[in-house]
Amino acid sequence: MTGNTAAPLRGREARKLRASALAAKFPYIRRKLPAVELMSAEAVEIIEANAETILEEIGIEFRRDPESLRLWRAAGAQVQGERVHIPRGLARRLLKTAPREFTLYARNPQRNVRFGGDATVFSPVGGPPFVTDLDRGRRYGTLEDLQNFIKLAHMAPAIHFSGGCMCEPMEIPPNKRHLDVQYSFFRYSDQGCEATPETPGHARDAIDMARALFGAGFVADHTVVLGNINSNSPLVFDGRMLGSLREFAAANQGTIVVPAVLAGAMGPVTVAGCMAEILAETMAGLALTQLVRPGAPVILGSFVGAISMRTGAPTFGTPEATQMIFATAQLARRLGVPCRSGGSLCSSKIADAQAAYESAHTLLPTVLAGVNLVTHAAGWLEGGLVASYEKFVMDADQLAMMQKLAEGMDLTERGQALEALREVGPGSHFLGCEHTQANFETAFYQSTIADYSSFEQWSIDGSLSADQRANRLWKKMLAEYRDPGIDPAADEAMLGFMAARKAVLTDAVEEE
Amino acid sequence: MTGNTAAPLRGREARKLRASALAAKFPYIRRKLPAVELMSAEAVEIIEANAETILEEIGIEFRRDPESLRLWRAAGAQVQGERVHIPRGLARRLLKTAPREFTLYARNPQRNVRFGGDATVFSPVGGPPFVTDLDRGRRYGTLEDLQNFIKLAHMAPAIHFSGGCMCEPMEIPPNKRHLDVQYSFFRYSDQGCEATPETPGHARDAIDMARALFGAGFVADHTVVLGNINSNSPLVFDGRMLGSLREFAAANQGTIVVPAVLAGAMGPVTVAGCMAEILAETMAGLALTQLVRPGAPVILGSFVGAISMRTGAPTFGTPEATQMIFATAQLARRLGVPCRSGGSLCSSKIADAQAAYESAHTLLPTVLAGVNLVTHAAGWLEGGLVASYEKFVMDADQLAMMQKLAEGMDLTERGQALEALREVGPGSHFLGCEHTQANFETAFYQSTIADYSSFEQWSIDGSLSADQRANRLWKKMLAEYRDPGIDPAADEAMLGFMAARKAVLTDAVEEE
Repeated sequence: MTGNTAAPLRGREARKLRASALAAKFPYIRRKLPAVELMSAEAVEIIEANAETILEEIGIEFRRDPESLRLWRAAGAQVQGERVHIPRGLARRLLKTAPREFTLYARNPQRNVRFGGDATVFSPVGGPPFVTDLDRGRRYGTLEDLQNFIKLAHMAPAIHFSGGCMCEPMEIPPNKRHLDVQYSFFRYSDQGCEATPETPGHARDAIDMARALFGAGFVADHTVVLGNINSNSPLVFDGRMLGSLREFAAANQGTIVVPAVLAGAMGPVTVAGCMAEILAETMAGLALTQLVRPGAPVILGSFVGAISMRTGAPTFGTPEATQMIFATAQLARRLGVPCRSGGSLCSSKIADAQAAYESAHTLLPTVLAGVNLVTHAAGWLEGGLVASYEKFVMDADQLAMMQKLAEGMDLTERGQALEALREVGPGSHFLGCEHTQANFETAFYQSTIADYSSFEQWSIDGSLSADQRANRLWKKMLAEYRDPGIDPAADEAMLGFMAARKAVLTDAVEEE
Repeated sequence: MTGNTAAPLRGREARKLRASALAAKFPYIRRKLPAVELMSAEAVEIIEANAETILEEIGIEFRRDPESLRLWRAAGAQVQGERVHIPRGLARRLLKTAPREFTLYARNPQRNVRFGGDATVFSPVGGPPFVTDLDRGRRYGTLEDLQNFIKLAHMAPAIHFSGGCMCEPMEIPPNKRHLDVQYSFFRYSDQGCEATPETPGHARDAIDMARALFGAGFVADHTVVLGNINSNSPLVFDGRMLGSLREFAAANQGTIVVPAVLAGAMGPVTVAGCMAEILAETMAGLALTQLVRPGAPVILGSFVGAISMRTGAPTFGTPEATQMIFATAQLARRLGVPCRSGGSLCSSKIADAQAAYESAHTLLPTVLAGVNLVTHAAGWLEGGLVASYEKFVMDADQLAMMQKLAEGMDLTERGQALEALREVGPGSHFLGCEHTQANFETAFYQSTIADYSSFEQWSIDGSLSADQRANRLWKKMLAEYRDPGIDPAADEAMLGFMAARKAVLTDAVEEE
């Protein structure tokens, strides 16, 4: 089935294509494919009705945050202790003030991204305490690792947004770490990014750091950071997350509410059961933002997986997760808010075939479903415990392919290629025909990782596996990184803010 | 994001689940998911119109087969030399006699499969001259290898059909090889299979062998083999394939017409261009079967890939191929015939991450698109030059997951799991709840390859990659293979037929 098809391009043209493989940064995606809806109308109705039943009858606990309880009571919910029973339809009604789409402003306006509608934004892995690469193996992350990943995300053509903390800089005390993390994101890339608002104090620091960078006036009426708010599934929000959510909403910054539901552990063993739970939790959390500040920008998130019934360990890229990704996007569209899900999730310990199967079975559904913010899209290994340098650039290559897929089918005269078919006719080939020559540069995405050569050539080149080729690529990319530069006054303002905060945050202080 | 979720099952229950992982064979799939249509109505109209333009204006060459030309002339086509210009709408009209669905009978009636409608059938790799495994490396295939793959396909739960020649037994002379191949398929598995009708003589031999097995009376009114007919793209059918096609159609056996179009080589560099070409070629070939015998069962096939613009080498699992898979299924449904495509195609030389990314980006679209016969679904490596033992069982594991996905969402009371949500409530977990205990056995598919254990446990177990675990699995499966047995009279009839044919087919004879 392969055959010895001759190379259509020779010499200078082929070299030009090779040289440009890493050069151009893509804008965020405006999908031209239809959003695939895998759930039936019946399923949607059942899940939405069950989510309302959960909200009203079982209720959601808003723990250790009296202000949230006060807001819910004022909105008409029944509050018993910390349990909030939200009458049918109330959360959905409150969400009518949330924007269907919004822009996240980056310090480089060309890197602004849009969340919602037909927009899709790819964002790398967030959260791992460990990093790994083929040379040094698995180890705790450091600030240098984080900055390396920020640089790689800055360079990868199809990573449109720097995301959240790609790895924890474990050498920095936890109560100061968020400052170095936020500074690194703002300093080493001019793309947009998230904050890591693990406490209300962290949330305030992130917003203040953004004010130092963008100016307080700009931040007052522009959304410049996203904060990820995890519910404590099932059906609980804790006080720290609630305080952070309220800080972000009050400042008109973006809030992502994400239940981390692994089916069988924090949710039932069925897809429909988990989706009702996820919808209930996200609706409750997102509605609260609108009670704080109507119109505050929000994103409905899901982080989907299941546990192994043999060992209890988390699994990713399984059929249940695939269905949950499609369901998330469909339910969010019905609700009229942007959504976040998916990425390149996997359980594998190394960047092998298991990692790639699982990642692809997460990523492709995410793109087909029309997810707006694709988190953990590059570098994720081992259930999110590890950020891998090799997997980062392997996934980034896949993201560029997904961006090409999202362009849909070219139906222009060029795309129809009837003239080419007429020119070539029966029994010939298209390698050198005029249409091929005219379109070769833009025809296909050129993979940075895949090896398409013959077995013999591949053997001569060292019989490298994909992760071994990736090992060379990320080093090459880091060597070629160019600092986007920064306004010295803004840099000084950020450094000054950070120094002042660190002086206050002694290592013993438990932040609230 | 992982956490230390405790195992929900202990002792006997967990062991039971482990022991049963390989046991049960699944019936072929009746999809409960909607068939995903990625092409717009406008795209469908353009491609269908362009295919008719190709058929009428450019025409298709039917080479070295006067009988085909005679049939086309009688049907109203313009024949100039070997070039047949098929008037707009004629091919589509002729295909109205082709069945929308048909059954392929296996010698075990429980393994009969259905092609068309909501049925999906998984079939392994076909055609490679080479095989590979981690112990012995890459080498020419042998009859023993072929029989091993037939046994693995027989055992794999989600491989419903044995497919075509999984590897060429290169030690047998080419003009006799098809007899040993066909016998091996009929003998070592009771699943259905293809023939390899590379010449009309091979086609007749396959049908005669089927008569020896099933009885001539049964074969006269039941379809028991499929024959794969490749067009010689662009826009050519050669005499051998045409003769085989006519033999199969005349005997009411199944014909798959498959252009092997790699975009940029045998087709234009654009998806819309390739799809018009593929539709034209398949309509021409399939319509011819209906001229031979109206009502003969057919399948519209596509084999999709593109060439690298850098090297001219074939590429798989790219965005163009993904679009072509969706388009194939959509166009076949409009035509009212079953379709074949997809599988687990890749360019990689080894079963690494590249192989898995590419395979998943072929397989998932194939399943979502609603392809009826999924060929090359397990074992394919290196653009189809190599059948890999490790990749075979890795892909087979993915197929079982796809079968689970195709079941869709359980919307029964069990699936909705509201009682479980009520029982567990806020802040607890679902690990031991009644609903989980009642459903753990059927809740999720248990992967045979994926490792979900902790990094520490995985290290203790030898830090194996997915292909290394697969190496153990295929050996275990072959060791556990149980001969399905065969009626001694049928076996004797097949062996007798084979001996008689081999006596006639001296090595020098070039078969027609």
